[in-house]
Amino acid sequence: MTYQNLDDLNQTLHSLDHALSVLSVDEAVNMPEGGGEARAEALATLAGMRHERAADPKVRDWIEEARKEDLTEDQRLALEEFDRVYTNLICLPAEFVRRKTEITTRTEQAWRAMRPANDWKGFEKELRKVIDLAREEAGLRSAATGLSPYDALMDQFDPGNRVDNVTPVFTRLKAFLKDFLPEVLAAQAERHHKRPLKKVIGPFPKANQKALAEAVMPVVGFDFTHGRLDESHHPFCGGVPTDVRMTTRYTEHEFLTSLLAVLHETGHAQYEQGLERLSAHWPHTQARGMGMHESQSLFVEMQIARSPEFWQWARVYVDQHIGTHALEDLDVEDIMAIVNLVEPGFIRVDADEVTYPLHVILRYELENGLVGGNLQVSDIPELWDAKMREYLGISTIDNPKDGPMQDVHWSAGLFGYFPSYTLGALMAAQQWAAMEKANPGARQQIAEGNFTRINDWRRDNIWRQGSRFSTPEIMRRATGEPLNADYFINHLKKRYL
Amino acid sequence: MTYQNLDDLNQTLHSLDHALSVLSVDEAVNMPEGGGEARAEALATLAGMRHERAADPKVRDWIEEARKEDLTEDQRLALEEFDRVYTNLICLPAEFVRRKTEITTRTEQAWRAMRPANDWKGFEKELRKVIDLAREEAGLRSAATGLSPYDALMDQFDPGNRVDNVTPVFTRLKAFLKDFLPEVLAAQAERHHKRPLKKVIGPFPKANQKALAEAVMPVVGFDFTHGRLDESHHPFCGGVPTDVRMTTRYTEHEFLTSLLAVLHETGHAQYEQGLERLSAHWPHTQARGMGMHESQSLFVEMQIARSPEFWQWARVYVDQHIGTHALEDLDVEDIMAIVNLVEPGFIRVDADEVTYPLHVILRYELENGLVGGNLQVSDIPELWDAKMREYLGISTIDNPKDGPMQDVHWSAGLFGYFPSYTLGALMAAQQWAAMEKANPGARQQIAEGNFTRINDWRRDNIWRQGSRFSTPEIMRRATGEPLNADYFINHLKKRYL
Repeated sequence: MTYQNLDDLNQTLHSLDHALSVLSVDEAVNMPEGGGEARAEALATLAGMRHERAADPKVRDWIEEARKEDLTEDQRLALEEFDRVYTNLICLPAEFVRRKTEITTRTEQAWRAMRPANDWKGFEKELRKVIDLAREEAGLRSAATGLSPYDALMDQFDPGNRVDNVTPVFTRLKAFLKDFLPEVLAAQAERHHKRPLKKVIGPFPKANQKALAEAVMPVVGFDFTHGRLDESHHPFCGGVPTDVRMTTRYTEHEFLTSLLAVLHETGHAQYEQGLERLSAHWPHTQARGMGMHESQSLFVEMQIARSPEFWQWARVYVDQHIGTHALEDLDVEDIMAIVNLVEPGFIRVDADEVTYPLHVILRYELENGLVGGNLQVSDIPELWDAKMREYLGISTIDNPKDGPMQDVHWSAGLFGYFPSYTLGALMAAQQWAAMEKANPGARQQIAEGNFTRINDWRRDNIWRQGSRFSTPEIMRRATGEPLNADYFINHLKKRYL
Repeated sequence: MTYQNLDDLNQTLHSLDHALSVLSVDEAVNMPEGGGEARAEALATLAGMRHERAADPKVRDWIEEARKEDLTEDQRLALEEFDRVYTNLICLPAEFVRRKTEITTRTEQAWRAMRPANDWKGFEKELRKVIDLAREEAGLRSAATGLSPYDALMDQFDPGNRVDNVTPVFTRLKAFLKDFLPEVLAAQAERHHKRPLKKVIGPFPKANQKALAEAVMPVVGFDFTHGRLDESHHPFCGGVPTDVRMTTRYTEHEFLTSLLAVLHETGHAQYEQGLERLSAHWPHTQARGMGMHESQSLFVEMQIARSPEFWQWARVYVDQHIGTHALEDLDVEDIMAIVNLVEPGFIRVDADEVTYPLHVILRYELENGLVGGNLQVSDIPELWDAKMREYLGISTIDNPKDGPMQDVHWSAGLFGYFPSYTLGALMAAQQWAAMEKANPGARQQIAEGNFTRINDWRRDNIWRQGSRFSTPEIMRRATGEPLNADYFINHLKKRYL
């Protein structure tokens, strides 16, 4: 049976992915400095071996032959998802991939050097080449998939996401947020006036923060028999589903930021740990995509961990592992004021829940223009500034390093990736609403530290769905309707007004 | 050029080895329990890919063709060592390898179950199959290499070791030790009478012991930019030369055992870290073999770390990292009495420097008989007991679990491996003598914590030689003469009488 050839191939690829993943985690967490060169070489060789096998032209024949075989419904889904992955894998010629690697590596280096110098003009020359690449790549992907160019880029990160569906949702969200933000800031000022914003005052030793994280994580749903928590410079969630490696970093003067980051990564980790174990080597059982992944991290961080009910429960853990002094003078309302503080700013990664989507929508609008060709690299600074002033009331025109030069994504050739962040936030809110409808006691359960029913819903409706369906289809099946910004909007209104 | 094909192949194998090695370290040090199954699967798949590429029949043609090419002297050495490795790799048919894996896996399981029950009769039935395998393997290896059967087995672990050279050395050593051991025990009793053996009394917290290890290691010569120290159940030295992963374990009631184990592994680590970096993917630059490796660990543990000069220097580090209470009432002579205590016992891995070789020689003598066919499995218990009584004055006849059932090696199908332990001890003593001849201040340098010249000698004469020559040839080049038991014997006399 030809299906068996594909099964064997997936087993091989899965083992190589296992190695690549664990080696990368080890590099970030454990590897001494001098191990870097040999590690990079090993990773490159293994990645090359993976590509060589995965992109073998005979795989196309296997897919076509397997289609004619007597397959179960699950095997049929597996085959279709495998086909989609294969098509996306082989649609770029080797020459293009080499050229892209070369140009984006150089542009990333340029970005690293020129950003501190605020040198947009120097950077613009390099970025122009990357935009040309992005247009070329979008064309190649479009030709292979039959999607429009920008859709073909988005489809890599969340299969099924389309401009035709995303743009109306973003338009509605933007219109709402532009009015909502001033209201939130006024309401927040009013609250701070009545009740000044408090501070948690350290030092909070690292060992205590780690103990707190390791006490909270398993209750929320992290399985320590299939994962661990380490430290790294940039927090991430890596490893493999049976052995998820989460990392965080700690600063001793403050503990809430690290704890919330741990809970964010816990959401990612639960998704991986909750995937189906059978056929784990086939793509259709793997996590759906970047936006769906972000919906899981934001479900825990935003829907659960920044809620008052969470802190009714969690503060006992803080008392126990950090000490009663940590939150001594703060009640839950004070904690809410700290963890849900809204402050418009330049930098996306530092943004709060309310302003974050505006950063993303700005990039989405620019990317559509850049990839579509009706916007040039030289237009970016003015347009960025105009949008920042319109959306957040702040200007970046004299400060490109905190404007269009703030992210590495474009230098790295990542286009179509930004929307997933905000789509993840919208999906998380919509999932919460659907889950709460089926489980109306959810908020009370959180206050009691009982996450079982909440996680059961997520496991059935999201984790176990793997990549069997497109991102929008998983959402429709899980929540009974297409993506709808209302849930996120209502969530914001309830939390911030 | 065909040589280039081999270079590419070695690069691929090297990257796979890198992955296998780091994944194995991660498994022992970091992996949560639930990650085991997927890890085992990934390791097996990668090992299979490695074997498939390494044992490709066309490699034989490449070797023959490359021989006719215009090669540098180093490339010629590289090619010959590669040929040796290839010959050893392909000489076992796949069917045999599968059968061996199956039988040894089952025998190891039987050993684990039957050893606690002291069930020699039950175990004997299983072991008989492994001995049959060992004879068959020795025959296959002998046919492929032209060596005698037992030489062909030893050659896997230390290329160039031959019964004709090892037996006379072991015979001389055994004769010496049989007389020497009672003398040592008498002299030791005399010393203890005059000056009772002292004890170090804990608890010594793990964090302090780790700090002590990490302070001593770099001075002795471990490079922390190319390695790290972790914890694992069984201490080992793994990883790759640019990123050596050493492990140890700590018990809080005692710190000397762990520190000496760390220093033992440091010797292994220095060998790996000191290998040539150019052509690191070719076998001729890699560590020579098991006995040579053991010579490096024993050089540090036995020649350096159990000497009085070492403790003149190291006790300040103990005071600083463990506390002055740790060695408060002990002078260097007391420490020597503790770390060099001689006590004949049943168990090889617990044996001291004096009795250890007798355990090894016993196994070497039995293995020669078992592989050669003039000894049967049923003969083992009586012969083991007779030799133990003769060499160490203790009987194991009623206690096979601490006699022939104490080690897993034979169950695992490892024959020809034991001699390397003692050859390592002999080589370390001979290397020390040669080094000290060139650097007569070596003992004084240790007392001052200055290991530069000692390590320079090891780097030039051992580490940088890689696998360019056979084990005996590296010894001859390094010390000016063939393996000679006198150096070890003189070392023992000096230390223990």
